[in-house]
Amino acid sequence: MNANIPKSLQKRVVIVGGGFGGLKLAQEILNSDYQVVLVDRNNYHQFQPLFYQVATAGLEPSSIAFPFRKIFHKNRNFHFRLTEVKKIDPVEKKIETEIGEITYDYLIIATGADTNFFGNQQIAQNSMPMKSIAEALALRNAFFQRLEDALNSSTVEEKEMNMNIVIVGGGATGVEVAGTLAEMRSYILPKDYPEMDFKSMKIILLEGSSRVLNAMAEVSCIKAKEYLTKMGVEVKLDTHVIDYDGSYVSLKNGEKIPTKTLVWAAGIIGNRIEGLPEESYIQGGRMVVNAFNQVQGTDSIFAIGDVACMITEDYPRGHPQMAQPAIQQGKNVANNLRNLAKNQPLKPFVYKNLGSMATVGRNKAVVELPGYKFQGFFAWLVWLVVHLKSILGIKNKFVVLLNWIWNYMTYNLSLRLIIKPKSKKDF
Amino acid sequence: MNANIPKSLQKRVVIVGGGFGGLKLAQEILNSDYQVVLVDRNNYHQFQPLFYQVATAGLEPSSIAFPFRKIFHKNRNFHFRLTEVKKIDPVEKKIETEIGEITYDYLIIATGADTNFFGNQQIAQNSMPMKSIAEALALRNAFFQRLEDALNSSTVEEKEMNMNIVIVGGGATGVEVAGTLAEMRSYILPKDYPEMDFKSMKIILLEGSSRVLNAMAEVSCIKAKEYLTKMGVEVKLDTHVIDYDGSYVSLKNGEKIPTKTLVWAAGIIGNRIEGLPEESYIQGGRMVVNAFNQVQGTDSIFAIGDVACMITEDYPRGHPQMAQPAIQQGKNVANNLRNLAKNQPLKPFVYKNLGSMATVGRNKAVVELPGYKFQGFFAWLVWLVVHLKSILGIKNKFVVLLNWIWNYMTYNLSLRLIIKPKSKKDF
Repeated sequence: MNANIPKSLQKRVVIVGGGFGGLKLAQEILNSDYQVVLVDRNNYHQFQPLFYQVATAGLEPSSIAFPFRKIFHKNRNFHFRLTEVKKIDPVEKKIETEIGEITYDYLIIATGADTNFFGNQQIAQNSMPMKSIAEALALRNAFFQRLEDALNSSTVEEKEMNMNIVIVGGGATGVEVAGTLAEMRSYILPKDYPEMDFKSMKIILLEGSSRVLNAMAEVSCIKAKEYLTKMGVEVKLDTHVIDYDGSYVSLKNGEKIPTKTLVWAAGIIGNRIEGLPEESYIQGGRMVVNAFNQVQGTDSIFAIGDVACMITEDYPRGHPQMAQPAIQQGKNVANNLRNLAKNQPLKPFVYKNLGSMATVGRNKAVVELPGYKFQGFFAWLVWLVVHLKSILGIKNKFVVLLNWIWNYMTYNLSLRLIIKPKSKKDF
Repeated sequence: MNANIPKSLQKRVVIVGGGFGGLKLAQEILNSDYQVVLVDRNNYHQFQPLFYQVATAGLEPSSIAFPFRKIFHKNRNFHFRLTEVKKIDPVEKKIETEIGEITYDYLIIATGADTNFFGNQQIAQNSMPMKSIAEALALRNAFFQRLEDALNSSTVEEKEMNMNIVIVGGGATGVEVAGTLAEMRSYILPKDYPEMDFKSMKIILLEGSSRVLNAMAEVSCIKAKEYLTKMGVEVKLDTHVIDYDGSYVSLKNGEKIPTKTLVWAAGIIGNRIEGLPEESYIQGGRMVVNAFNQVQGTDSIFAIGDVACMITEDYPRGHPQMAQPAIQQGKNVANNLRNLAKNQPLKPFVYKNLGSMATVGRNKAVVELPGYKFQGFFAWLVWLVVHLKSILGIKNKFVVLLNWIWNYMTYNLSLRLIIKPKSKKDF
């Protein structure tokens, strides 16, 4: 069985994964002599930096999801296949997918990373990760269901367990979720649930290292923690979770925190596809690549973005697993594929650090641009503009902006819906 | 176990179901001497007339769903419980729900109606109904998944089976879904799937009676059919479906139509709750009520809307199962509950027919107002304004309007996403 990609005299570039890196690469290679095949398990690109707003009822999934077929409208050189890749066969130069085989001349692995539970099955089973729109939606549903459950709790202990929220991982996702929930607790929930006392609702952020936003400079970390504390988030640093049974979070220091909602944003691991030798992988499930993003020991397989690990002098542990390195690598690989077509030499990847930022709440963000660090209202504005600019599609930008203005003015995150598609056949 | 509704000296009105009727009643009775408890299995009110736009990727679920808690913000006399009602105990005056018992002084059954499969288990199993936002979302996911499947079909027969869509039931829902899909096939799908030939995609509307929009006047029926036919929908009247195995629709005349997508909008049946005598029910699972909407043989239980059947001279088979009778009955019952509190006599319900309408496509609708029937562009504008006005919330109105303008200008229904929340615990 093969996946029915039309035969073409052109060489074929197969891209696995349409995240920031894969999408950029597809867009850049499009008007070339290559036939382009994009394979993804979703039919849309996901804008990861705003998952937390979907999870906290600020944005609709559709505002940060963009159908691939729409992006590549009318392009007869481009083929999208909605499927999961099972295996790579580097000898025959083909991939095996759920819908059949696809041969390639060049393969780009842009599968990104998924939540790392560090082998703890119980945590994986009982906690809520946030690495896809589907997971963010599940989290939104869970939040609001727990509050309904809290109303019907027969004991004080059960009630607290339903109301408390524990977030593990003080990176951008953890900080942003904690901040938004704290604002919701202050401004919205008491109006929605006049029968309930939200003073007893705890929002706790646990971080294993000695600061939140660990990857940023100290000034940002300190400010972010200050913001969170002011907003009523209990930030516990140097704190390690060892288990979670769905009711109690067990900490290394012996403490137990009662909660029915554990958000797990404590680490990521590369999304691996079978078929390549074990030596291709390094810590965190990332694939070792050379300066051209070629996977060790191959010249027709590239890896880019979160799943790739290019060890350089400046980045001895690989580039940060964020949008920018993925986008820039996608662009560079696209250029190099064009060079290959013309028998020209490949250009090594050079990472240009554009900075990083995180938002904690209304008027509260921390921003680090090259040579300039700032926090507060202006940082928050910069955060808004940068993210709005990055969202695909005019209509999406407009809808997101409208939502942000609305939420800002009314304090009212309006999507407090528990919507689950009915299971029907496999839907 | 009881459902933790705070005790109050006021008499308690319990409303089961927050559709058009239940919601109206709750709003009207709110500032009275009653404690109001609304029970629904969703935490939001659903705007049914636009389900078809959610199913066809024109609107987000959130645009036509409104959280009950937001509607009744800060009101300490109002209590919402997210649960399903299992049984009524008319002797003890209480209902049994999944989260415990709730006692009532007055009970209002506003449970609406669900899809009627007329006892055919196979059709129920294999077809897609459209009586909730969740079902509309499932349908949207199915549409787009089938197109992806069509790309990977190995035979022509399999391909056609994946592409064809059969809609059963020529009421407003069936007509609207068929029309929107036909437009999508003309304007959008060929751009999304340049590899595919949409001339071979059939959209078939099956109706058992001799006309579509059966409940409207003949002029509207004829025009609607004309519109549909022009748009390339195959309309088959006097056609009865006897079975569907997931691949072939079997008609009474022996014909078989290959399709993987059968939309079932062929009939509805009242949502029944256990505990009342069998004599309370009439054809279509509706509850017989008197002129005050009191359920036969009781004076403290009322039924309103789709689930109620008030037999009058003008409506010997009960009022039409649409939004208006439900809303008007909700209002009248609220007034009568106030009268009961003051020991004043009850007022009988008088239905004011405000007309009916249906839209078939761009610039194409049929409208019947009392004494005035018209079709075409102006009808379509009237349809837009009436529906926009009826949507709850300023922001929702604005977002829906924005979507409509956008879709109208670009021909581009933008929500072609297959999004399913990941199953995690019970979410």
